[in-house]
Amino acid sequence: VYLDGNSLGALPLAAASRLHGVIGREWGRRAIRGWGEGWMDLPVRVGEAIAGLVGAAPGQVIVGDSTTVCFYKLAWAALGYGMASGRDEIVCDAGNFPTDRYVIEGLAASLGASVVWLASASLGAVERAVGPSTALVTLSHVSYGAGEVCDMAAVCSVARSAGALTLWDVSHSAGSLPVSLDDAGADLAVGCTYKYLNGGPGAPAFMYVRSGLQEVQQPIWGWLGHADPFAMGPVYEPAAGMRGFLSGTPPVLALSAVEEGVRVVGDAGLRRIRTKGVALTEYLIGLADARLGRFGMRVASPREAAVRGSHVVLGHSAAARLVSRLADVGVICDFREPDLVRIGCSPLTTRFVDVWDAVEALVAVLSAEG
Amino acid sequence: VYLDGNSLGALPLAAASRLHGVIGREWGRRAIRGWGEGWMDLPVRVGEAIAGLVGAAPGQVIVGDSTTVCFYKLAWAALGYGMASGRDEIVCDAGNFPTDRYVIEGLAASLGASVVWLASASLGAVERAVGPSTALVTLSHVSYGAGEVCDMAAVCSVARSAGALTLWDVSHSAGSLPVSLDDAGADLAVGCTYKYLNGGPGAPAFMYVRSGLQEVQQPIWGWLGHADPFAMGPVYEPAAGMRGFLSGTPPVLALSAVEEGVRVVGDAGLRRIRTKGVALTEYLIGLADARLGRFGMRVASPREAAVRGSHVVLGHSAAARLVSRLADVGVICDFREPDLVRIGCSPLTTRFVDVWDAVEALVAVLSAEG
Repeated sequence: VYLDGNSLGALPLAAASRLHGVIGREWGRRAIRGWGEGWMDLPVRVGEAIAGLVGAAPGQVIVGDSTTVCFYKLAWAALGYGMASGRDEIVCDAGNFPTDRYVIEGLAASLGASVVWLASASLGAVERAVGPSTALVTLSHVSYGAGEVCDMAAVCSVARSAGALTLWDVSHSAGSLPVSLDDAGADLAVGCTYKYLNGGPGAPAFMYVRSGLQEVQQPIWGWLGHADPFAMGPVYEPAAGMRGFLSGTPPVLALSAVEEGVRVVGDAGLRRIRTKGVALTEYLIGLADARLGRFGMRVASPREAAVRGSHVVLGHSAAARLVSRLADVGVICDFREPDLVRIGCSPLTTRFVDVWDAVEALVAVLSAEG
Repeated sequence: VYLDGNSLGALPLAAASRLHGVIGREWGRRAIRGWGEGWMDLPVRVGEAIAGLVGAAPGQVIVGDSTTVCFYKLAWAALGYGMASGRDEIVCDAGNFPTDRYVIEGLAASLGASVVWLASASLGAVERAVGPSTALVTLSHVSYGAGEVCDMAAVCSVARSAGALTLWDVSHSAGSLPVSLDDAGADLAVGCTYKYLNGGPGAPAFMYVRSGLQEVQQPIWGWLGHADPFAMGPVYEPAAGMRGFLSGTPPVLALSAVEEGVRVVGDAGLRRIRTKGVALTEYLIGLADARLGRFGMRVASPREAAVRGSHVVLGHSAAARLVSRLADVGVICDFREPDLVRIGCSPLTTRFVDVWDAVEALVAVLSAEG
């Protein structure tokens, strides 16, 4: 019973066979020629496939480095853009995913900006925090903790009115529910590919920069971001468009797997994925209320489906131990500080019976706890 | 006839079978549990395996992001260290690999430092360039162009006397000849794993920071560089030692392949690899002199074996076309601006008959050129 597809998506069969081909035939037989036979296009091609899943018109998404590095590059670019006109504040949710917070903390320290930490990612909190000094507002679309969906369009509107850019982390929404970066008016976004996009452990992240803003400058000037990498000229000239946001040589194996994982999501269709995701989490919440409440376990995710992603957290003082006991009986979910059991209902691979079995196992484990 | 192992190393059979296991068994069956079953240790474990090949005592090497991103992190750290004591100049070879030069150019622009470009990586040029304002001297150990070996120990000594740090790019030496980072007195180094270490297309790079200098701060503060990533605490606290130089989630597939590629090099032994590398390049140079000189093709790499890496460049005005014609007849090497045919003699996989066949093919192609 695998309820951690929100953290690491399951292996698509298509990814396994694609990788076997990339390893044996492409790397093994074609070797260096692979760069001229599709490898060099992977960052753009996979980016465009993801664009279709996050509501981005072509030319705005590319796959690059780790989520952390991609987030750093775009946050740096946005902050540099704002600081050029005297804006030196970053507004960030204090409950944002750790790597996002650490990147922001480091950036502020190195560029001399300050951070306004929000106690929540609510629209009201954002409204109170933004002002004429705000360079950047950065939030997760779906929080990694409670799985709460943020009102992206409303936040973008508030930020834009204040003259600030927005940078979204869509790691927990991309592939699990429809994301509308263009329509919401997002400026920049970063998303993970190894969760709901099934790209494989440590797969590279994607970056979105809306057209019209792509002249912002990212800090890691590498040869793959150059307008003409193989000219190997003396001066860095960023490539036009999203290629200018690349830095180093693309990770071919990982990108190939991501392409297959993304294809599976596209084939299934986000509307159907979202419908099943809502049904799974509704089912889980209903079972938790009916069967786990008497053990002091409470639903800590939003009860309103419209503002809930595809994972649910259940609070219990013994959460860490419970997760470990569940693993002993073959139910895989995860623990999140301080007292949360996080249950991922990745719609493509989670069955209703998995949810039933997980609750059944929790009842058994909690009963044994006495 | 594959003479490009200096650019992309051939697929080790062990890497293919390891990857099949990582994909099917680890990702496919163990999924998220993989992080507790070895994945999280890969950056350190593979780093320590590489340490043995670059003359580094334990605790100084880790595998992270792309070469470009790793180079950025260490250059930033070194420059920040120097600027804290008023040093704001970077000395860099103008013939260094493009991504290194572009990173330095970008860093200088964003941190307000200046770059002293060297016309050559000679010791004399370094001696003339360093001074009380020098924060950092950065060179390649073996140049990507001519394949010339730089006297690392001598340069380190000169830099240290001037109070500057050194950052080495060992991409074209690691795995092809003995590198002695500790003994040479290097401060920092970055190296690629997909060349002579056979890690696969776009595999991540390694970073070396000598013990005693590991308190320098890298700029990309991510959760994997945190002292306690899963505490997900509010404030970034860098992990002690090399883990503090990590940023994002490790690329598991690529790291697994690198581990196998590195093992192959270690098993063969660098002394034997170097001996064969010298014999191959001597053989190539002898054949080029004897058979290609009359077509106006000249050896543009050092003739003295001690200062030559494992690739040789041959100059010819029609170099780009020659490389393309060679590919047509199944001889793979590469073209480098402006007029160089670069022939890699990766010792582990290049046979003497490959060198013979390549020269034979060049004679045929050059004869046909008229």
